[in-house]
Amino acid sequence: MEEQIIKNGKLQWQPGTMVYPIPAVMLSCGDKPDNYNIITIAWTGTLNTNPPMLYASIRKNRHSHEIVSRTKEFVINLTNKDLAFQTDWCGVKSGKDFDKFKSMKLTPRKGEKVTAPIIVESPVNIECKVTEIRELGTHDMFVAEVVNIQADEKYLDKRSGSFELFRANPLVYSHGHYYELGDHVGKFGWSVMSEKAKKKQPQVNYNRRK
Amino acid sequence: MEEQIIKNGKLQWQPGTMVYPIPAVMLSCGDKPDNYNIITIAWTGTLNTNPPMLYASIRKNRHSHEIVSRTKEFVINLTNKDLAFQTDWCGVKSGKDFDKFKSMKLTPRKGEKVTAPIIVESPVNIECKVTEIRELGTHDMFVAEVVNIQADEKYLDKRSGSFELFRANPLVYSHGHYYELGDHVGKFGWSVMSEKAKKKQPQVNYNRRK
Repeated sequence: MEEQIIKNGKLQWQPGTMVYPIPAVMLSCGDKPDNYNIITIAWTGTLNTNPPMLYASIRKNRHSHEIVSRTKEFVINLTNKDLAFQTDWCGVKSGKDFDKFKSMKLTPRKGEKVTAPIIVESPVNIECKVTEIRELGTHDMFVAEVVNIQADEKYLDKRSGSFELFRANPLVYSHGHYYELGDHVGKFGWSVMSEKAKKKQPQVNYNRRK
Repeated sequence: MEEQIIKNGKLQWQPGTMVYPIPAVMLSCGDKPDNYNIITIAWTGTLNTNPPMLYASIRKNRHSHEIVSRTKEFVINLTNKDLAFQTDWCGVKSGKDFDKFKSMKLTPRKGEKVTAPIIVESPVNIECKVTEIRELGTHDMFVAEVVNIQADEKYLDKRSGSFELFRANPLVYSHGHYYELGDHVGKFGWSVMSEKAKKKQPQVNYNRRK
């Protein structure tokens, strides 16, 4: 065990990657079935609300790096507990050695606005077009615009019209481990909501699992 | 309720921001106590492993936007259930109207490698220096290098030397709602781990709460 430096009750660490909890998404890419591939990444997030933009950082030596660099397209597929094994496996195996869709029994379907495939089993598929590739060091950051979103209709509450992502049991990645989403703590803005406004909120149990 | 277009079992949406679950972090900034401020953001994530880089996207009209643009420094403070109220409140109120540290009874302390303050109550403080500001539309993306990390020593397992972030009960943000971290699903790489290797893993209950 290495020595830990503690100052004022805080461990003092070298710079590192500690932004957690984060999503673990399956990024799918390719422009024809025989080069379709999947890579699991956690270095992803929304960059801008309008226009909707996101990024995906990929190591240069990964098989998908070449595909996305060439096709300038990818799909971010959100994952959930049902897809946990596939999510982990697609993060450690290489598309040079496996047809990951076949190996993991996942279903590709050409995107609506991109040629890259969505993963049909994923609860939400975010179709993206790359606008810029930036070399940062170990990873290249693919900056992309969101061009279309597909979402599994079974998580739509047909009465309210709202999409209930929590029912998909989304997978969370935190410091080397995958977790389920836990208990509901509050809705955005709840800290300033009046008691009257709180009573007007839709009566939904946000802890409900699939 | 607006009409939903469904095709092959998938709702078809306009482009939007749907990368979830994500962290809800408190970003602290300022170069002297009378301009210290906190803003809660969810558009953040790791961009690169080595050198460690991350981003924080902030709307141009936010009070912190001006501070970070000028000082080129900020701290990403991870949040947990104990800080849920403060996290939500700091996301909806403005530093133009409130001293958020005082209002929320949070403790600032000058960073070790930056002049900006850390939030002492946060389990992990990531000190950052801005290397680039990019205008994307509604938000500007502050690209930054991580220069130091401080972490609450109470989450250090002194026997193994490992930092157990899950014991801090990290806050997760997903589609408009805050959640706790839920049940443990697996460790990174578990899908390809042999039974022998699995048995050699440290016996830790990753579901353990504080």
